[in-house]
Amino acid sequence: MNPLTSFCQSLTWTEVAAGIWKAEAGKPEAYTLLRAAGVSPNIAAISAIGEATFPFERDEIVVEIRDGKTYVRLPLAREEQVYGFGLNFQTVHQRGKVMQLHVDHYGNKDNGRTHAPVPFYVSSRGYGVFVNSARYLDIYAGAAVRKDSKHPPEAKDRNTDTTWSSRPYSDAVEILVPAAGVELYIFGGKEPLQAVQRFNLFNGGGCLPPRWGLGFTQRVHRLYTADQVTNEAEEFASRKYPLDFIGLEPGWQSKSYPCTFEWDKTRFPEPAKFVQQMLSKGIRINLWTNPYVSPDASMYEKILPYTGSHTVWVGVVPDLTMPEAQTIFFSQFEKDHVNIGVSGYKIDEVDGYDTWLWPDVATFPSGISAEQMRQTYGVLVQKYSTDMFRKNNQRTYGLVRASNAGASSFPYVIYNDNYSHQDFITGLVNSGFSGVLWTPEVRASKTGEEWLRRMQSVCFSPMAMINAWADGTKPWSFPEVAKQVQEIAMLRMQMMPYWYTAFARYHFQGIPPFRAMNLEEGFTQKAVSVVEKTSLGENPYVEAVTKEIKDQYMAGEYLLVAPMFAGQATRQVVLPTGNWYDFYTGKLAGNGEVITVAPGLDKIPVFVKDGGIIPLMPPLLHAPKSGQKVDLEIRHYGEKPGRYLLYDDDGETYNYEKGQYSWREIRVEKQQNGQFKGSISKAEKNKPDSIGKVTWRFMTN
Amino acid sequence: MNPLTSFCQSLTWTEVAAGIWKAEAGKPEAYTLLRAAGVSPNIAAISAIGEATFPFERDEIVVEIRDGKTYVRLPLAREEQVYGFGLNFQTVHQRGKVMQLHVDHYGNKDNGRTHAPVPFYVSSRGYGVFVNSARYLDIYAGAAVRKDSKHPPEAKDRNTDTTWSSRPYSDAVEILVPAAGVELYIFGGKEPLQAVQRFNLFNGGGCLPPRWGLGFTQRVHRLYTADQVTNEAEEFASRKYPLDFIGLEPGWQSKSYPCTFEWDKTRFPEPAKFVQQMLSKGIRINLWTNPYVSPDASMYEKILPYTGSHTVWVGVVPDLTMPEAQTIFFSQFEKDHVNIGVSGYKIDEVDGYDTWLWPDVATFPSGISAEQMRQTYGVLVQKYSTDMFRKNNQRTYGLVRASNAGASSFPYVIYNDNYSHQDFITGLVNSGFSGVLWTPEVRASKTGEEWLRRMQSVCFSPMAMINAWADGTKPWSFPEVAKQVQEIAMLRMQMMPYWYTAFARYHFQGIPPFRAMNLEEGFTQKAVSVVEKTSLGENPYVEAVTKEIKDQYMAGEYLLVAPMFAGQATRQVVLPTGNWYDFYTGKLAGNGEVITVAPGLDKIPVFVKDGGIIPLMPPLLHAPKSGQKVDLEIRHYGEKPGRYLLYDDDGETYNYEKGQYSWREIRVEKQQNGQFKGSISKAEKNKPDSIGKVTWRFMTN
Repeated sequence: MNPLTSFCQSLTWTEVAAGIWKAEAGKPEAYTLLRAAGVSPNIAAISAIGEATFPFERDEIVVEIRDGKTYVRLPLAREEQVYGFGLNFQTVHQRGKVMQLHVDHYGNKDNGRTHAPVPFYVSSRGYGVFVNSARYLDIYAGAAVRKDSKHPPEAKDRNTDTTWSSRPYSDAVEILVPAAGVELYIFGGKEPLQAVQRFNLFNGGGCLPPRWGLGFTQRVHRLYTADQVTNEAEEFASRKYPLDFIGLEPGWQSKSYPCTFEWDKTRFPEPAKFVQQMLSKGIRINLWTNPYVSPDASMYEKILPYTGSHTVWVGVVPDLTMPEAQTIFFSQFEKDHVNIGVSGYKIDEVDGYDTWLWPDVATFPSGISAEQMRQTYGVLVQKYSTDMFRKNNQRTYGLVRASNAGASSFPYVIYNDNYSHQDFITGLVNSGFSGVLWTPEVRASKTGEEWLRRMQSVCFSPMAMINAWADGTKPWSFPEVAKQVQEIAMLRMQMMPYWYTAFARYHFQGIPPFRAMNLEEGFTQKAVSVVEKTSLGENPYVEAVTKEIKDQYMAGEYLLVAPMFAGQATRQVVLPTGNWYDFYTGKLAGNGEVITVAPGLDKIPVFVKDGGIIPLMPPLLHAPKSGQKVDLEIRHYGEKPGRYLLYDDDGETYNYEKGQYSWREIRVEKQQNGQFKGSISKAEKNKPDSIGKVTWRFMTN
Repeated sequence: MNPLTSFCQSLTWTEVAAGIWKAEAGKPEAYTLLRAAGVSPNIAAISAIGEATFPFERDEIVVEIRDGKTYVRLPLAREEQVYGFGLNFQTVHQRGKVMQLHVDHYGNKDNGRTHAPVPFYVSSRGYGVFVNSARYLDIYAGAAVRKDSKHPPEAKDRNTDTTWSSRPYSDAVEILVPAAGVELYIFGGKEPLQAVQRFNLFNGGGCLPPRWGLGFTQRVHRLYTADQVTNEAEEFASRKYPLDFIGLEPGWQSKSYPCTFEWDKTRFPEPAKFVQQMLSKGIRINLWTNPYVSPDASMYEKILPYTGSHTVWVGVVPDLTMPEAQTIFFSQFEKDHVNIGVSGYKIDEVDGYDTWLWPDVATFPSGISAEQMRQTYGVLVQKYSTDMFRKNNQRTYGLVRASNAGASSFPYVIYNDNYSHQDFITGLVNSGFSGVLWTPEVRASKTGEEWLRRMQSVCFSPMAMINAWADGTKPWSFPEVAKQVQEIAMLRMQMMPYWYTAFARYHFQGIPPFRAMNLEEGFTQKAVSVVEKTSLGENPYVEAVTKEIKDQYMAGEYLLVAPMFAGQATRQVVLPTGNWYDFYTGKLAGNGEVITVAPGLDKIPVFVKDGGIIPLMPPLLHAPKSGQKVDLEIRHYGEKPGRYLLYDDDGETYNYEKGQYSWREIRVEKQQNGQFKGSISKAEKNKPDSIGKVTWRFMTN
């Protein structure tokens, strides 16, 4: 720890998969993010992306070990932008930022404290960098300027030079790892999306939820009884709102905060019967929990030796890096929940706040530090809970409040307590850079307008969830928009073949189902500099602020979604180059331009790429079951011919890992008479086939 | 760095001064907060406080070295409250808080990131704890609960138990020092104030500003010329507003951000003449600067080898731990500023933000890490600039944006860019726990009312400063309150003997001139639990919030100040036990109770302790010069007789360190006729004597 003990190191880069290079600086720690996630890269899928060249001159990457820490520097070119560094909620462009990556509840600042502070960034030049460390990493993403920089900014006199900036140009990303060594990875690509694909595939590929996971979900009041839950499901059915799974909040447990993980027999006297009855109505049950074990839990004494030094609300914290703790903890989940038919979990409070978690001074029996445990606990609960379902050959889809690198393949969606609709959308934009999923869930709303606007967004997201259990808002609670809410919810259901395929592409090709415009070809919107002059008295020096596009995103292969926020009558939409068409009418919307739309209250603006193909199923109230055939309406948009691969499997099991799936090729081609004609390939022999009758709709004429 | 390598250590405590104990855990680092400050304890004054007992059973303090870090645990009793941990702005009670002490601009959260994150806390039980580390320290101040706690909280079911809390009772302060060893200090006391006194005296005692430093100060526009500054001073004089020093903002330098430290010859063609002319009018000049050296500065080439690896706005950062850097840097200050009569500095941007400073990845030629440099840079600039004035036997009084432990004796007041009047007052309250000074400076205001209310507060603070240079507001800018502003400013001047004595007590006895009610005898206001029920939808679990008294404070020996904020017509004031009297009328205000006051716009509520003695001088426009005699009106308040020691010295030099000062004893006693009578002792022979004619005023009848 002598501050003078420092040494520079030249790194040896090994290509560990096509276009993915790894190097070790110093002596990397044994416990890392990838070690916690414990997944295998999809080497074949990575190879299928093609070759890539190493994106730097190798000596441009500088590593030094000093003061017990590892310093890493990577170059940045002048016009380069960087994205990622985890689930940020306010900004997309990360160049110029200083952050400390730290699992925490998002506290209204993109400072590195977030639910998934993934140490991976993507460059606009088409490469990614990943630091495989489970420590709190200090990041200077083009924010610091070295005396010896080869591309120094110009010194300016702030007295008189109005172009002075508090953040002069910086030519490097600098990272401080508080450990005497670290593993580094570079992900190559022809464009940024390829680097993201490689990252996701290196982490085992994205998750493929069960079909029902992409349906509608409602969470009910924490003190609801079995009968009240049943009534809630019946009301959805009678009012004809779709519903695939219901989430039970803490009161299903006999005690919570800390938890027993056991059913409360007054509210749920016959849990197995209750779960089966719900299943028979087509409704799955998701259980809220956090992992802190109550002294009244039956597992308490057994798990005690495998728990940390500090408690969370007097509950003990299982050391989930230890097989003993994994077994004791999850075998009860298996027995009491999974084996009676429970479909998944909402795993709360594994992120922070600091006062809501074990402290950084805690110790764990495995010897893993509190800091490392904090950075990976969300990953561990995802991993071992998924394993439990996998053992039953049953897919799950749940919610979690913390994640990190390596977790792309775990079927969990991140949520939080923040409630800014705008931030929720920016979170969705950023989720695609980090191999995580995010839901802009709907809770309370002040007005019907807000309720509908939020619902429209949630229907174009990884999980269509209402989480209004605390105030009891139902989809139909605002009568003035109840019909529109129903319609958008049904549209969500109709689009299930499209969503499901988008997730299959996430799994097999690493393409995020929801992602930033910056990953879309033809999107060239540069940062717009805006000078705000509102508070001269409080900040005497006026400076330009960078504006970025953070309120629209890509959904699946073809769709550009531009949500409306309460209070807006119009909004601007930035369309990439190429023709884009209105999703609802098929009319040309624009091409490489900024358009202004006024969609009215009923619609969320959605645009389709030229040649886009959108498969729709009938508006069912529940997702199709395994083997259930559904008819398809296949829509085509624009002037270009189209080709689309529609994914199909049983929708419920892991049999797709054994090849039990098919890609159905859909083609739309112009005939000699100028009319479009569509075709769809047959299902492969002995592969699942869920497609009934097909009709075609050519939206643009 | 093997996480399994950990060991517990029993500490050996050595009494290094009366009631001050020191212990070393592990292998403490060489560079510490006290090393940076480099001051000597005032052993005699510490002894004069008396004996103290060690506040713990020694084995209650636990230390462990693990994961390359030092873990420290100290016990907390059930009803104990803790204060301090630096310059917090929103809270006074620190028990239950999690923070990382980190020099930074205050970002609207008391999370350890502040201008003076002093690792010292004071217990309501009358002791203090200081961690002498220049690292970012993680603090769990009664916020974490161990499995093996001897005083465990009760597990509660959140489902049904409304007394459930997210922050169960914790019986310890836990600290993580990111180094394999640390020095710890315990400061004993019969009451919390004694622990604070010991801490301040151990740091050399509080600073004693020159008399003029306690007068009024105005900062002028950054591009003002010498003539414009002269005009500003003349306008103060002609309008009869007091003024002792004027602050020049960046434009006095030929270049700024980064700086040349050289006069701009277009705006200030003859700096020496300008400064002398101002001095002849009784106005001193204070110079803004930050310490980052412009490539255009004449010192640039010389200091370059002694600067850090990274620049700040392309300016180099002197390694001020190195004598070479100190000499090159400050010898220019001496030559160009101090030797021509400049009285002091405002040293900006030594705190943060993160994007406004060298990064934590920077290195410095001394081998001191960027983190340690960040924690101490404010201390270093205070120390070496003070030394420069001391060499001239001339006191200074300036402004600085960062400080830390050890800096009590440096004559600097902290300021920032935040502008919440309420937070400013809480900052003033907390400054007294940490051996720092804070100014609730006045900048722009939306209304005359706000302007006056802020001015009233600033006149009862360590530095009466208007810092409205950016928008150009003058004391008289709001005509509707110009007279009241003048009156409060003149009251500030009249009270100079009282303020000066308060600072003498800070220096000689370690008693903060401005301090929390919690350091006042008879103040027993317990935390009030308040349940707020405003956002059930957003936070379904309602919890009690602790209310604390953070909007009133003690000023000097006798005064309780309860500022009014814009928009308030009335406010509550918590009076400690004992009779308290209205400062303006002498009438009894209350005794150990909560009163409501409606003082009107003209007055800031101020209350005087029973038997309080307040010496006032005539309302001069400038502080008395060395040797200048001023008449005194000595006021007495209440029913009790009074005894007060009034401090006197030349007000400008360091001769007081050689004994050139006196304490004049003032007594007010009841005569047989029931009337009060006052007396004041004569000046000691050959000691400075600035007191002219004395008149007496017995305020309470």
